[in-house]
Amino acid sequence: MFSFDRRLQYPVKVGSPDPIFARMLQQAIGGVEGEIRVCMQYFFQAWGARGPTTKYRDMLLHTATEEIGHIEMLATAVALNLDKAPASLAEAGAADGIVGAVMGGENPRHVVEGMLHRHILSTGMAAFPGNSEGVPFDMSHIYASGNLAADMYCNVAAESTGRVLATRLYNAAHDDGMKDMLHFMIARDTMHQQQWLAVIEELGGHEGALPIPNSFPQEKEDQTHNYDFFATASDGSVPPPARWNDGPSMDGKGQFTVFQNVPMGDEPVLGPARPDSGAQNEQIGKV
Amino acid sequence: MFSFDRRLQYPVKVGSPDPIFARMLQQAIGGVEGEIRVCMQYFFQAWGARGPTTKYRDMLLHTATEEIGHIEMLATAVALNLDKAPASLAEAGAADGIVGAVMGGENPRHVVEGMLHRHILSTGMAAFPGNSEGVPFDMSHIYASGNLAADMYCNVAAESTGRVLATRLYNAAHDDGMKDMLHFMIARDTMHQQQWLAVIEELGGHEGALPIPNSFPQEKEDQTHNYDFFATASDGSVPPPARWNDGPSMDGKGQFTVFQNVPMGDEPVLGPARPDSGAQNEQIGKV
Amino acid sequence: MFSFDRRLQYPVKVGSPDPIFARMLQQAIGGVEGEIRVCMQYFFQAWGARGPTTKYRDMLLHTATEEIGHIEMLATAVALNLDKAPASLAEAGAADGIVGAVMGGENPRHVVEGMLHRHILSTGMAAFPGNSEGVPFDMSHIYASGNLAADMYCNVAAESTGRVLATRLYNAAHDDGMKDMLHFMIARDTMHQQQWLAVIEELGGHEGALPIPNSFPQEKEDQTHNYDFFATASDGSVPPPARWNDGPSMDGKGQFTVFQNVPMGDEPVLGPARPDSGAQNEQIGKV
Amino acid sequence: MFSFDRRLQYPVKVGSPDPIFARMLQQAIGGVEGEIRVCMQYFFQAWGARGPTTKYRDMLLHTATEEIGHIEMLATAVALNLDKAPASLAEAGAADGIVGAVMGGENPRHVVEGMLHRHILSTGMAAFPGNSEGVPFDMSHIYASGNLAADMYCNVAAESTGRVLATRLYNAAHDDGMKDMLHFMIARDTMHQQQWLAVIEELGGHEGALPIPNSFPQEKEDQTHNYDFFATASDGSVPPPARWNDGPSMDGKGQFTVFQNVPMGDEPVLGPARPDSGAQNEQIGKV
Amino acid sequence: MFSFDRRLQYPVKVGSPDPIFARMLQQAIGGVEGEIRVCMQYFFQAWGARGPTTKYRDMLLHTATEEIGHIEMLATAVALNLDKAPASLAEAGAADGIVGAVMGGENPRHVVEGMLHRHILSTGMAAFPGNSEGVPFDMSHIYASGNLAADMYCNVAAESTGRVLATRLYNAAHDDGMKDMLHFMIARDTMHQQQWLAVIEELGGHEGALPIPNSFPQEKEDQTHNYDFFATASDGSVPPPARWNDGPSMDGKGQFTVFQNVPMGDEPVLGPARPDSGAQNEQIGKV
Amino acid sequence: MFSFDRRLQYPVKVGSPDPIFARMLQQAIGGVEGEIRVCMQYFFQAWGARGPTTKYRDMLLHTATEEIGHIEMLATAVALNLDKAPASLAEAGAADGIVGAVMGGENPRHVVEGMLHRHILSTGMAAFPGNSEGVPFDMSHIYASGNLAADMYCNVAAESTGRVLATRLYNAAHDDGMKDMLHFMIARDTMHQQQWLAVIEELGGHEGALPIPNSFPQEKEDQTHNYDFFATASDGSVPPPARWNDGPSMDGKGQFTVFQNVPMGDEPVLGPARPDSGAQNEQIGKV
Repeated sequence: MFSFDRRLQYPVKVGSPDPIFARMLQQAIGGVEGEIRVCMQYFFQAWGARGPTTKYRDMLLHTATEEIGHIEMLATAVALNLDKAPASLAEAGAADGIVGAVMGGENPRHVVEGMLHRHILSTGMAAFPGNSEGVPFDMSHIYASGNLAADMYCNVAAESTGRVLATRLYNAAHDDGMKDMLHFMIARDTMHQQQWLAVIEELGGHEGALPIPNSFPQEKEDQTHNYDFFATASDGSVPPPARWNDGPSMDGKGQFTVFQNVPMGDEPVLGPARPDSGAQNEQIGKV
Repeated sequence: MFSFDRRLQYPVKVGSPDPIFARMLQQAIGGVEGEIRVCMQYFFQAWGARGPTTKYRDMLLHTATEEIGHIEMLATAVALNLDKAPASLAEAGAADGIVGAVMGGENPRHVVEGMLHRHILSTGMAAFPGNSEGVPFDMSHIYASGNLAADMYCNVAAESTGRVLATRLYNAAHDDGMKDMLHFMIARDTMHQQQWLAVIEELGGHEGALPIPNSFPQEKEDQTHNYDFFATASDGSVPPPARWNDGPSMDGKGQFTVFQNVPMGDEPVLGPARPDSGAQNEQIGKV
Repeated sequence: MFSFDRRLQYPVKVGSPDPIFARMLQQAIGGVEGEIRVCMQYFFQAWGARGPTTKYRDMLLHTATEEIGHIEMLATAVALNLDKAPASLAEAGAADGIVGAVMGGENPRHVVEGMLHRHILSTGMAAFPGNSEGVPFDMSHIYASGNLAADMYCNVAAESTGRVLATRLYNAAHDDGMKDMLHFMIARDTMHQQQWLAVIEELGGHEGALPIPNSFPQEKEDQTHNYDFFATASDGSVPPPARWNDGPSMDGKGQFTVFQNVPMGDEPVLGPARPDSGAQNEQIGKV
Repeated sequence: MFSFDRRLQYPVKVGSPDPIFARMLQQAIGGVEGEIRVCMQYFFQAWGARGPTTKYRDMLLHTATEEIGHIEMLATAVALNLDKAPASLAEAGAADGIVGAVMGGENPRHVVEGMLHRHILSTGMAAFPGNSEGVPFDMSHIYASGNLAADMYCNVAAESTGRVLATRLYNAAHDDGMKDMLHFMIARDTMHQQQWLAVIEELGGHEGALPIPNSFPQEKEDQTHNYDFFATASDGSVPPPARWNDGPSMDGKGQFTVFQNVPMGDEPVLGPARPDSGAQNEQIGKV
Repeated sequence: MFSFDRRLQYPVKVGSPDPIFARMLQQAIGGVEGEIRVCMQYFFQAWGARGPTTKYRDMLLHTATEEIGHIEMLATAVALNLDKAPASLAEAGAADGIVGAVMGGENPRHVVEGMLHRHILSTGMAAFPGNSEGVPFDMSHIYASGNLAADMYCNVAAESTGRVLATRLYNAAHDDGMKDMLHFMIARDTMHQQQWLAVIEELGGHEGALPIPNSFPQEKEDQTHNYDFFATASDGSVPPPARWNDGPSMDGKGQFTVFQNVPMGDEPVLGPARPDSGAQNEQIGKV
Repeated sequence: MFSFDRRLQYPVKVGSPDPIFARMLQQAIGGVEGEIRVCMQYFFQAWGARGPTTKYRDMLLHTATEEIGHIEMLATAVALNLDKAPASLAEAGAADGIVGAVMGGENPRHVVEGMLHRHILSTGMAAFPGNSEGVPFDMSHIYASGNLAADMYCNVAAESTGRVLATRLYNAAHDDGMKDMLHFMIARDTMHQQQWLAVIEELGGHEGALPIPNSFPQEKEDQTHNYDFFATASDGSVPPPARWNDGPSMDGKGQFTVFQNVPMGDEPVLGPARPDSGAQNEQIGKV
């Protein structure tokens, strides 16, 4: 069960509203690297967490709940970037001209309006749960596999691409308030990368957790090829020795080797189509 | 540029065709944990790989190319599970009765036909690029961020959920041919988990690669909260000490601490809606 | 069964073609507030209408059929905004320069071309069934629940957001022809809002139709909480009295009350994962 | 900012786990009538709420926050329906046979497994943010228009279809625990229908709030057709008098009339395609 | 502008309602081979038709309008398959047992209910605009390119897969009414295949219309490879002579030849990532 | 099984990087007319090809494999258009200013950045598998019906819209390198249009292959309407004689005729809703 505080987790201030930056922030709300994704991903992992202990469920709930507040901060930042501060709105004539003012001229404003159609046409100058190109977020990106270690790597992946995005936004930001908000969110992404990797460490690290799932007996997998780098270049060239193709494997259970890919199977032959299957007669062999 | 060999990378044999298992295999083709995903993900990472060396581009091309062959194997397995072996098809009357034979009765067959509608209605008994529920694969799942370390974690995540899926399919399989094919694919997933983690090791491991991106100066992020676990329970309870909230961080650059979440910001106030923005008069303050 | 008239329901004239406005009009074609949505929604509600009378099916067919003509008008308006009137096209050199002429310069034209890619690259200067950001319309937005009152509220919602959109387009329009077309469509949205609300009135209004579905006996629902506003603020604050939390309910069947949210349930415990389920050993309890 | 309580808002008990019912419950999680939708819809409406007062933002936050807890309850119910109570899991041999036990035989179990592929193959027996057919929830269903009255009708629509769904699930449920959970959720839907309608009443009711948006001057819309029911039957038949086509309009600002649809516009003529536009020569007029 | 007739284009009768067949019919409504697709495709092609004549616009309007009636017939067929004829519904006790009656037993009914969730949970026993697996139709499948000949081939493709689907449904149908309806729809698909091919003939046939677009001067394309079949087998084998790799081309403008694929380009080198682009230091070359 | 060559099939050179053109090229990668589509379409057609011979499977594999190389070329072209050649990157200050340099000023650059958000925010200046508007490619566009002739027409449609797109890109290109690359790809599209049409010729041409599927006996279809053009104009007007409504049909098996559409069926009547189906009482007839 949940409760809310009217105040934001961290201050969100916008000195100079910038509708283009509002649009960019959408990527951090509804992009695949964004906050809706991590929020929902951690919740669904929590709500499905099985195991002898509830500690991982509990941990996930702490962080998922934090993430709702991040969506809230970003949605607030979008709205503020699409408008002036409330006080100024009382100043009459300017109320309409904000987008124009930012861009400094008539034609660019026209262009910008075209680019901002969803904010202008559909949301009335508010954030929406889609990315910076207006593509709505799709919940198939919520990864929750039922395997705790796999889920942790999914989370590291999400927080890694998430921090990459946040630093790109930071580099693109011109406003001190936006930079301040982002420098907090970047720090949280740092922690979250750490946090999920630390769970993997707690679960045994590379040696104990791998290969994922560690509950499937490795005797059942093809042990002739489970640590082979398959080379597939048509000229038969192979990569020079590197950490990922030479020496002990990361889990300490094998030796990396380079293997030249060769067909071990045959050419598949499916045979004719069935009568009444809607194929052409030629496929059925009726001709 | 690419070329093909008519033979499969590994043998695909189906002793007893099973249309329900065909349907399950679709998840490994067009599910988010499936082979289209990793194939295309590695290709787009390769084609956009920037850096002073082409070695990572090259590595990714080797493995992406291998993965096309995995889609091929699975598509072949689906087709074979939807039909008898070619030789038997010559035996006249049986050609139609396969689905029925598998299920052993009229009513269940009817049910199964309903479940297999896409294979029956749309593909003529062949694989399609969607998951086991008929949802088409959506290319937004191809993660390629331009950051090599982030991409490697995305790949580990994909191969971890991929191997989880493959072992579930193995456990569900009744046919020796299918078990054999899957025991090879599971082994390849083992290697691919290793391979991407080894690249991260080569890039400096936890200490060198984290936080991702390592090119963003950590001085610019909020250093008061970048290694804090934020506790968000309403009763103020905090998790007991664990690897992920106590002691040195994974990257060796901080100390994990538990921090009780408190609002540092204010309640946001957006002010009235603009005239002519399509809001109600009450929002504009015109009433 | 249907028939068509070559003429439009209402005149569509474009004095000064404006490709950016064409793009904005797409939202009214293929946006979730647009005309494809209401057209198909009313059709599917009609085709599935059950009840002792066919009068609602009939009513829905009248209006759904009108809406095809609205899509037609908008698609025509898009095409006209993307080109000059046919006569002018005979004037040689200008044929290519239309987009440029509108924008008045080389660079902005380049920008506009980039923004109009789908109209230029995919449709050859015609409308398409997607929104102003190029996202194709998705038929999951066709709401037809089998409950007539619920459907009417879905329709009111569609026509309310639809009229909001149409007035925003009207405010953005510079061309008299476009303003004329939109002032007709806005009027039709006014009527359609009225129409669906009047059906609810005919079905008994708030008292008779609510709660929807009115065929589910209210004795079976939890009668201690069916008219409570649940307050979920962490500081325990509750909203001041308002129409929606104090006094008689809208359906006259209860009293609005404010209730402070408290957990009535326990912490859920799911227990360990099953063996062979692809979880980590730690989740299965095998370690 | 948000916080969580480990306990559920309302008890969720499952006496006899039923995997088919688990699947049905998914519709209430990730269907367009489900809880993710209302939760996110109310949040985005709140975060973008503009106006001279924050009371609607506040109200929306209360209810949005409640809804997170509803997703949580349903996700818990799905997980419990997919498994036995934890105590029983210690009993060895039965661990695998749950689905079979429910269905009472080998073949149906096989069928059920096929139907449950996502729960078995992808989530490890947990809920996911998709509907009962495995289609992921798509955030384009979050309606937040920037117009408060339009949004309220969107919310009424969501809670109406939501309560219809919940009563259908109640009618389909065999388990007392599930019926108890649903009888609470149905009550909450009752209140939420009331609540949003009461806001419209507070905003002036039909007379004050309509047509939406009420900030667009009705003088600007086509006043000859704004209260006409357009009849579109090819035989010229019109509906008999009813509340929606005869008498005063709902907003008291017009009279309902029936109008026989006639073309007021001309047949549109677009003229030839441009040279270099990728059309056929015949369209360009070059032949 | 459009009008409707209350009667169906062709009789739709269902002797024995079959909910599984209802589900299969959905593919013909909202599948990519279905009627919504052709209806909307022809409309958007018509509304964007450019050229010196309106005859193709007119032709497309005739057929698009016919197709609305096909969606209507199928939606009616779905509803009838989900219920008994109205008269029987008066017979009390049976009202609930229809699905059970069809399947003849308790367990299969349970299974069927699970499979039919959307019809039961979301539509109240009516058709919806999605395919037989519940995936909503997505308007990106409306192909309208602005090139008349390309569009005609898109239409032939749609009607070819459409007739394949319709014959599969015919073969799966057990009910005489359904077979009758389908035998009419199959005939219409026959005509529509013919019709679009005849337009291509009118546009010059293979010689005149190809390559599409015929307005692009062939001198500008690479004339050394425009009639070559590229062989890409890694063993260098080439296909035996066939109509598609040997002899005069279909358009009479070239000779089919087999060409062994060889790399004409170099290995691409993208160089280092930019500073501040969110890449790892190793990609930027900063290490 | 597959292998790769590090070199490109055809040279890809970019003299003047142009980020807007990069964006346009995305349509040829991940648009519905693009190369991912044809590549995957040919592969899935190949992997499901049934028939007495493997020659069509083989042919499809040759061409599908070629198409991977086309995606590679386009992805490379996108990356090069988003950056300068590597040598120049060493020149310090310019590294950041590339996008600005292309556009020649501060404001346009800002606009362009907004438009390129996905390339800047999500991919780090690389191609992605989506179209020019950022919409990800969706695999439902992979048409593989199990009917060889239907599939060939799907392929002609894909290559026709594909060549239309490629010529539009050629016309929009300013860079000689890009024009050269495209003039090769246009030539390949010419061949692929030819190739699939030649297969249909080999399968019997119009007379032998039509109607598709030719394995469904035409006696079973409604022979009174299978070569009729249905006229649906409300004024009863019919099209003048044309190849598609007059004279012998394309398959030589019928005569085109114009038929005035009339309702042959009745108005459908569905009867009341079932009790407990979640309808309103009025629909059930309980009032």
